[in-house]
Amino acid sequence: MFIREMTEAECITVVTSGRLARLACSKDDRPYVVPIHYAYAGRRLYSFSMPGRKIELMRVNPHVCVQVDVATGAQGWKSVLLYGQYQELPETPQWHRERRYAWSLLEKHVNWWEPGGLKPTPQKMLGASPHLFYCISVDEMTGRAAAADDRG
Amino acid sequence: MFIREMTEAECITVVTSGRLARLACSKDDRPYVVPIHYAYAGRRLYSFSMPGRKIELMRVNPHVCVQVDVATGAQGWKSVLLYGQYQELPETPQWHRERRYAWSLLEKHVNWWEPGGLKPTPQKMLGASPHLFYCISVDEMTGRAAAADDRG
Repeated sequence: MFIREMTEAECITVVTSGRLARLACSKDDRPYVVPIHYAYAGRRLYSFSMPGRKIELMRVNPHVCVQVDVATGAQGWKSVLLYGQYQELPETPQWHRERRYAWSLLEKHVNWWEPGGLKPTPQKMLGASPHLFYCISVDEMTGRAAAADDRG
Repeated sequence: MFIREMTEAECITVVTSGRLARLACSKDDRPYVVPIHYAYAGRRLYSFSMPGRKIELMRVNPHVCVQVDVATGAQGWKSVLLYGQYQELPETPQWHRERRYAWSLLEKHVNWWEPGGLKPTPQKMLGASPHLFYCISVDEMTGRAAAADDRG
């Protein structure tokens, strides 16, 4: 198995085409990790969630680490880590445009895989729902690729 | 989509049959999450790793959170979180038996998926290699299951 560092361009390709990530946050150095569905654009990762533990934790400590991976070939894989900061997109006039943009990216996905979440009604801005929109502003991105031979 | 809490017995079934997990650790409240391969037995999750960032972090702060998931049916899934503590299994007489037990569980897996790791030589105790064996003693386990209808 050959393992190499990925370029940032390669990392962006993996993250842009991916949908499912694992989001790690922490409070008082007690880490917490959950799967999320996301959409990536412009160095931001957009997602939404029901209120719950990860939201509570990220409101206190916005530093997060997000991991995305993809299988390549029979034994190969690429794994990308994004380090960034949580930003809630509240239902206020200031954030209206960003929320709308987040939703325009997210509504393209048909099948949601969101523990703690419920499938939102398509074409609806979720105005009256308890869902929260948020984004992760990416500060740094690294990746590793593995292949059964050195062509990976 | 119907989401429900899983019983501990269900969580153990998912974790016992799984191989790939995401391990989150943190230092100074900066979380870090990476995929690991593991074997689970007796409320311990066994794994090994090359020296690297996650080992450095867990040596400083042993509190970790591990996430394991499995797809069930077309849209269903089960996701389990394990909260526990890192314990290194060093190459000393005191830990010899535990290391051997860890290896007996881990060598059953053919395909390794370990970023930062290299496939070990089968049937070898890795005495001279830089690989580290470790385990996570599980303090708490929770899980959620989702299904397209309420039979999941």
